[in-house]
Amino acid sequence: MSFNSFGHLFRFMTWGESHGPAIGAVVDGCPPGLSLSSTDIQPWLDKRRPGASRFTTQRREADLVQILSGTFEGKTTGMPISLLIENQDQRSKDYSELAKTYRPGHADYTYDVKYGLRDWRGGGRSSARETAARVAAGAIARLVIPEVAVRAYLVELGGDPVDRDAFDPEALEASPLNCPDRAAAARWETSLDAARKAGSSLGAIVECVASGVPPGWGAPVYGKLDAELALAMMSINAAKGVEIGDGFASARLRGEENADAMRAGPTFLSNHAGGILGGISSGQPVVLRVAFKPTSSILTPVLTIDSDGKETEIVTKGRHDPCVAIRAVPIVEAMMALVLADHKLLHRAQCG
Amino acid sequence: MSFNSFGHLFRFMTWGESHGPAIGAVVDGCPPGLSLSSTDIQPWLDKRRPGASRFTTQRREADLVQILSGTFEGKTTGMPISLLIENQDQRSKDYSELAKTYRPGHADYTYDVKYGLRDWRGGGRSSARETAARVAAGAIARLVIPEVAVRAYLVELGGDPVDRDAFDPEALEASPLNCPDRAAAARWETSLDAARKAGSSLGAIVECVASGVPPGWGAPVYGKLDAELALAMMSINAAKGVEIGDGFASARLRGEENADAMRAGPTFLSNHAGGILGGISSGQPVVLRVAFKPTSSILTPVLTIDSDGKETEIVTKGRHDPCVAIRAVPIVEAMMALVLADHKLLHRAQCG
Amino acid sequence: MSFNSFGHLFRFMTWGESHGPAIGAVVDGCPPGLSLSSTDIQPWLDKRRPGASRFTTQRREADLVQILSGTFEGKTTGMPISLLIENQDQRSKDYSELAKTYRPGHADYTYDVKYGLRDWRGGGRSSARETAARVAAGAIARLVIPEVAVRAYLVELGGDPVDRDAFDPEALEASPLNCPDRAAAARWETSLDAARKAGSSLGAIVECVASGVPPGWGAPVYGKLDAELALAMMSINAAKGVEIGDGFASARLRGEENADAMRAGPTFLSNHAGGILGGISSGQPVVLRVAFKPTSSILTPVLTIDSDGKETEIVTKGRHDPCVAIRAVPIVEAMMALVLADHKLLHRAQCG
Amino acid sequence: MSFNSFGHLFRFMTWGESHGPAIGAVVDGCPPGLSLSSTDIQPWLDKRRPGASRFTTQRREADLVQILSGTFEGKTTGMPISLLIENQDQRSKDYSELAKTYRPGHADYTYDVKYGLRDWRGGGRSSARETAARVAAGAIARLVIPEVAVRAYLVELGGDPVDRDAFDPEALEASPLNCPDRAAAARWETSLDAARKAGSSLGAIVECVASGVPPGWGAPVYGKLDAELALAMMSINAAKGVEIGDGFASARLRGEENADAMRAGPTFLSNHAGGILGGISSGQPVVLRVAFKPTSSILTPVLTIDSDGKETEIVTKGRHDPCVAIRAVPIVEAMMALVLADHKLLHRAQCG
Repeated sequence: MSFNSFGHLFRFMTWGESHGPAIGAVVDGCPPGLSLSSTDIQPWLDKRRPGASRFTTQRREADLVQILSGTFEGKTTGMPISLLIENQDQRSKDYSELAKTYRPGHADYTYDVKYGLRDWRGGGRSSARETAARVAAGAIARLVIPEVAVRAYLVELGGDPVDRDAFDPEALEASPLNCPDRAAAARWETSLDAARKAGSSLGAIVECVASGVPPGWGAPVYGKLDAELALAMMSINAAKGVEIGDGFASARLRGEENADAMRAGPTFLSNHAGGILGGISSGQPVVLRVAFKPTSSILTPVLTIDSDGKETEIVTKGRHDPCVAIRAVPIVEAMMALVLADHKLLHRAQCG
Repeated sequence: MSFNSFGHLFRFMTWGESHGPAIGAVVDGCPPGLSLSSTDIQPWLDKRRPGASRFTTQRREADLVQILSGTFEGKTTGMPISLLIENQDQRSKDYSELAKTYRPGHADYTYDVKYGLRDWRGGGRSSARETAARVAAGAIARLVIPEVAVRAYLVELGGDPVDRDAFDPEALEASPLNCPDRAAAARWETSLDAARKAGSSLGAIVECVASGVPPGWGAPVYGKLDAELALAMMSINAAKGVEIGDGFASARLRGEENADAMRAGPTFLSNHAGGILGGISSGQPVVLRVAFKPTSSILTPVLTIDSDGKETEIVTKGRHDPCVAIRAVPIVEAMMALVLADHKLLHRAQCG
Repeated sequence: MSFNSFGHLFRFMTWGESHGPAIGAVVDGCPPGLSLSSTDIQPWLDKRRPGASRFTTQRREADLVQILSGTFEGKTTGMPISLLIENQDQRSKDYSELAKTYRPGHADYTYDVKYGLRDWRGGGRSSARETAARVAAGAIARLVIPEVAVRAYLVELGGDPVDRDAFDPEALEASPLNCPDRAAAARWETSLDAARKAGSSLGAIVECVASGVPPGWGAPVYGKLDAELALAMMSINAAKGVEIGDGFASARLRGEENADAMRAGPTFLSNHAGGILGGISSGQPVVLRVAFKPTSSILTPVLTIDSDGKETEIVTKGRHDPCVAIRAVPIVEAMMALVLADHKLLHRAQCG
Repeated sequence: MSFNSFGHLFRFMTWGESHGPAIGAVVDGCPPGLSLSSTDIQPWLDKRRPGASRFTTQRREADLVQILSGTFEGKTTGMPISLLIENQDQRSKDYSELAKTYRPGHADYTYDVKYGLRDWRGGGRSSARETAARVAAGAIARLVIPEVAVRAYLVELGGDPVDRDAFDPEALEASPLNCPDRAAAARWETSLDAARKAGSSLGAIVECVASGVPPGWGAPVYGKLDAELALAMMSINAAKGVEIGDGFASARLRGEENADAMRAGPTFLSNHAGGILGGISSGQPVVLRVAFKPTSSILTPVLTIDSDGKETEIVTKGRHDPCVAIRAVPIVEAMMALVLADHKLLHRAQCG
């Protein structure tokens, strides 16, 4: 019911605007007794942090997280965990012309028409800055599901896909583009540089795999694990599509091609389903993909109107990512971990 | 929190198994004073009803809905509306061999491993029979949003897309395949007949458009209208992907191609966004697509195991749709209406 | 959020009006594998059933419960359990004069002013008939907490308290008044007969004890076990007060009198707290009391207005309980069981 | 579902421990466009602040609130409002002996047995310090319901009631004891001084009246306004009982005495019901009372055990209120305002 909370039992709420004094998350329902300090959270925030390469916005934020409650002598107590990240490099001045003009592709117009006013400084609450709070919450979720490994990466950028046969985990760890294919990464760097110089931007597709999920997490009908993952992923800024397993491609398969045959173990001979059957995890890796649109903030002029309804055009200055999907990787991972942690607890509740 | 409920303020819960005595939905939070009788609900159920053409399962269900509460003298009272649909044509015998064998692509294995037992008669709760209850609830949702027109249809079947220039609303209304393109419909009939004869099945993609949605419905962050629609659609049986507006295709666009320019009115010069910006409706039509996998119940033998873990193979007899997406059309429409009705009330609550 | 649902994980929704075709409850989140048939539910409904003695309404209802979903081969499946009870002895005619006149103490005026219309037949949804659905749901809750024994009884009727030293469990089981003190029961029969003859009614206080609750159920702050019990009890028709342990009397104790000293075991030397400390069960019996106002439907004329705002007076004919608290006993027990079952699952979820 | 959140549409979550760096609340679902700055909140916090008189704990906290999000140019934006209050005067040393010993009447034992560990510094999360966050959230709730005036006060302390004929609003505003009867206040001062000197403590009863509530707020069955108020009030530290209108006294009335007759207007000739009928506000003042037990922290030795289960006794040093109910007055008011603000929005949602 809360517009700013997510989850059922393992639950978090985020707050804060792009250019306010701080942003934060409060994680509620965390099991007690887990070792937790800021060093468990900071590395994930560092992965999302802006300014790490020339392929992300040049806004400089240390993104240092403080834990204000919910731990005692280094362990979680079961009480709400309040996480706070101060905003440092707000240059609201960059945005002053946005006070009156709606940026196409952004939430400017819809916030104004819904609420009758909006915090236009850097997009206010609609800024992807909010996602730092998710990443912080997601780091705690990971502690709740030590049996699960969650990893996301780009599989396509600007329409240029990776070669899945060239998937290289080491390349991925080293890649500022979160690309698991060295050759693709090199091509993408060229594309991104060109897009940036042209004042344009590119879209991309992020894939996320959760390994180690035991069978039985999730629930029927409206609590389906895949449905909740779709909610989680589509709530990320700039996400326009979510698919599980073969996703849209499965609509082009025949029944016998799509069936994941089972052998004793049980093992599955394929994973078209993406690790979820009837909304419940099957024990196979949970696999999904999220489509991100190109960054809406571009230097190319676009026709628009201002808040008086007058026609004008806009060039979005400021510091922006040429492809938001690159920094979305830790956010997708965080949302995956948050959904899985919640369903681990839900499963334990009902099925003991 | 309830695994069988959906929605926040305009909310419904469904119950019932494929081969139990009945299924039902209880709609809660409905505004009072709306004219409602079973004739407002029955036509939508008839659209979903099995056995209407040779392209759907031959199970015969009248699917007559009874309203057991929540109305008085033909009007809603604001109290919960209990809807009941009796099951009539259960042939559990057809399923008796399923008592022990897991059908690949179905929830058989995951239900068993999660709950330790399952109602195997016709898939029990995991059967798409549950969706009749959604369609009934959705019919009431439509009454809450008379300003909105919701229409879904197939845009691709078995990998064969419609020609969007041949979109013909009259053809759609007459089509047992829910196909808006006469030529495509003819091709699809051939494909479906062939698949059925081969004991196979086909996937498809359903598009849904909601026109008349005023700007301002939805909410930021975790209450985004598109995120809730993704949850709603991915909760439908056999759904494997959801996209809003240009969806996955937007990941291949450049920023300037993707921008929906605005002119006075306001009007938008395009609708790549699918009618939602920052999680809030923009006043443009809300557009989404859902990918459905091919029916998992096929006559082609598939390798599997039984509940003792022994290897075997299975041929799924019984009466099945060669393409579940055809009957998913009224379900997608219902879920769209249910999400929008809920957000209409949520918007009124916060913003007056 | 739903106005007609209760609980978090073990959750139920009720529906139905006093003079509609049926009432019902849907229980969601029930653990799988519990033995359940209608014989587990019926005895509790029989305890609440009207017409059992001259001290309750003469409306005749068999109150036979049907289980429409959620079980298979005699066991719960983890799916929603739909319970249906048909209404049989509706004499709406008795109520026809109520169509326009507001009964003081009833919900007639407030429903009308809120919703703009109301089902006036027997009070519609505001009738205590709804509580049959709670009792049915509560019977399932009892199966979730076999370690707990829940028992309620009257401790005061018409201002006349029981003698706690005369508490006799056998007397309680045999008492149509749910009175544990034979002498008090005899006095109460006299009072009730007199009140009925005078066209009046009496209030009473119900006490409920849950024994066997292990320490650790409940939660801090807004999920306090006592707070949720207060919600549960105050939601019962005609309830006007709830207290835990010593309740209002504790406001007259000094700190050292109120302290429940602890000894090894742990055991407590007293139970002023009513088995709950900081919102969490202590392992002592959970004890609460609920105050019920006298039945509002009386034969004594009361000044009122009609729905046009005109002044009139009303005599409430129909068949009514001279003291609603007598039949409230199984309802209080049901709500206690429902809250405890929910918190058992919640505790298991967070603390394993 | 969140153990630390309250409310449905107008909703808040609190976090923080007594001796952590800070405590806070996040208010979600607030309507946009309300004027809000810290000066709207601070006066209510000042009313609750410790150390204001010799009748409250001598812990010194400035309790200055900071608004970290959710406002722009002095107005609420509809986004979550993050409120932060730093802890300043933590003397955890005072509590070091509590690390191992359970204080009777406190949550020490139950937290330990539930979570397996606890933050014992000043009671951690179970401390009434959490209620400062509620008071801050409640100040915002008041802005949502400008039509309503909420006022609470003590009506009984240590078993000594006020004379209702001597109710003096001016005396109340001036009273450090929140007592509306000058004579009673003088007696209570004497009692409190005596209790403090004796190392004892006293209980009390707080009454709260909300005037100006329009008819129609609340909902049937499980969303009853009185039920939600009972939840709200019983969630306050040390609360042991809640009653609405005549409450427990109504159990001693006859039906004709209890009926609130209506005359044209409509007006009511009495308010035994406490402004709520069938769970919905009637337009009369909403009246409730909350019983608070005597402070559990006393200087009189009490038998107890330590966390190894060994028997010992305890004298609770530290700085404590001789009667917690005095400072509970602004908390009761805050919870009343929070429930009413939520139901105002809920009513608007369903009934327009």
